[in-house]
Amino acid sequence: MKIDPAGLERKIAHDVLVGAVLPRPIAFISTLGEDGVYNLAPYSFFIPVSMNPIIVGVGIGRKRDGSKKDTLVNIEWGKDFVVNLVTEPLAEAMNQTAGEYPKDVDEFQVAGLTPIQADLVKSPRVGESPVNMECRLHQILSFGESTRKNEFVLGEVLRIHVKDEYWVKGEIQSTKLRAIGRMGGDFYCRTGDVFEMKRPVVR
Amino acid sequence: MKIDPAGLERKIAHDVLVGAVLPRPIAFISTLGEDGVYNLAPYSFFIPVSMNPIIVGVGIGRKRDGSKKDTLVNIEWGKDFVVNLVTEPLAEAMNQTAGEYPKDVDEFQVAGLTPIQADLVKSPRVGESPVNMECRLHQILSFGESTRKNEFVLGEVLRIHVKDEYWVKGEIQSTKLRAIGRMGGDFYCRTGDVFEMKRPVVR
Repeated sequence: MKIDPAGLERKIAHDVLVGAVLPRPIAFISTLGEDGVYNLAPYSFFIPVSMNPIIVGVGIGRKRDGSKKDTLVNIEWGKDFVVNLVTEPLAEAMNQTAGEYPKDVDEFQVAGLTPIQADLVKSPRVGESPVNMECRLHQILSFGESTRKNEFVLGEVLRIHVKDEYWVKGEIQSTKLRAIGRMGGDFYCRTGDVFEMKRPVVR
Repeated sequence: MKIDPAGLERKIAHDVLVGAVLPRPIAFISTLGEDGVYNLAPYSFFIPVSMNPIIVGVGIGRKRDGSKKDTLVNIEWGKDFVVNLVTEPLAEAMNQTAGEYPKDVDEFQVAGLTPIQADLVKSPRVGESPVNMECRLHQILSFGESTRKNEFVLGEVLRIHVKDEYWVKGEIQSTKLRAIGRMGGDFYCRTGDVFEMKRPVVR
């Protein structure tokens, strides 16, 4: 089967891409709005883009009507955000925040999660998440035109919080975190089934 | 535990970040060099960055001495690349290509994989991979300075190949692909343990 994305409708192109690039890490993004209301929502187009400085990037699509999502509006205003890791115990709560709620809804309350004051940014951390990354806006890349615009937001990671139980001998115990990943459709994967491969040494 | 990446050595900052952002999809990238030699190497800082046009991004770090990796050199020359999905049966072969081989080494031969002529780009596809994405270079973002430079390469996806057995009723069977993801350290995860959550409908 050969698929040329340029000729596809937006929804179909999206479905093909999320079925082909996986498993994807989930950035559970918390922000503060100009109105003082917290926002919390999951995004799976998320990855480190630079190691020096440490910058992560997250793709934020538009709403069905082409308008900006609250996460983007808040980041453009406040110039910061927090990325929280999603683990198995947080899966249901995360999914609750994935609906398109009005701007005055605080998804922390919808999901029953605890906002905690961050150290270096205005956006709150999710208290229940074992890893939080406090990020300062670095740059926003825009793609597409008019109603099909979409943004890729780059943030410099200022501080990473790791719950002590997952920080052993100066390393994050990544295989113990029970992180979940995003697959195609409405599917998610657990990450408990792991294996190790040492990179070959050449010469 | 609080970690401020800016104060860390490059290797330690990298280890913290790959332990905190996971599971990561693996882009197994095939390219053609100016010398006619194919290159093939895995990268796990990989994600879709735009839905319209369809653009994917991949972070490509420098070699230990600060020089460019062959993948980046080839993309800058040829202006295209192919992203191949890594699945369980391909794990060992992929790991073989992860060594730092001299430029005149064809990693397809090292790993015993089959280069197949792509339709729209010069770079070859990996015949054994169930999903290949033919990409044309869109933009290269550079971060950092001198020996600590690193690049994030954006490519427009021109064509996606999906082996017929994974293309059912107009959808990629993402949970059947047996894709593997990248965790922290030298760990990888399988994606066979999945669950489904429907996004809540608001109003």
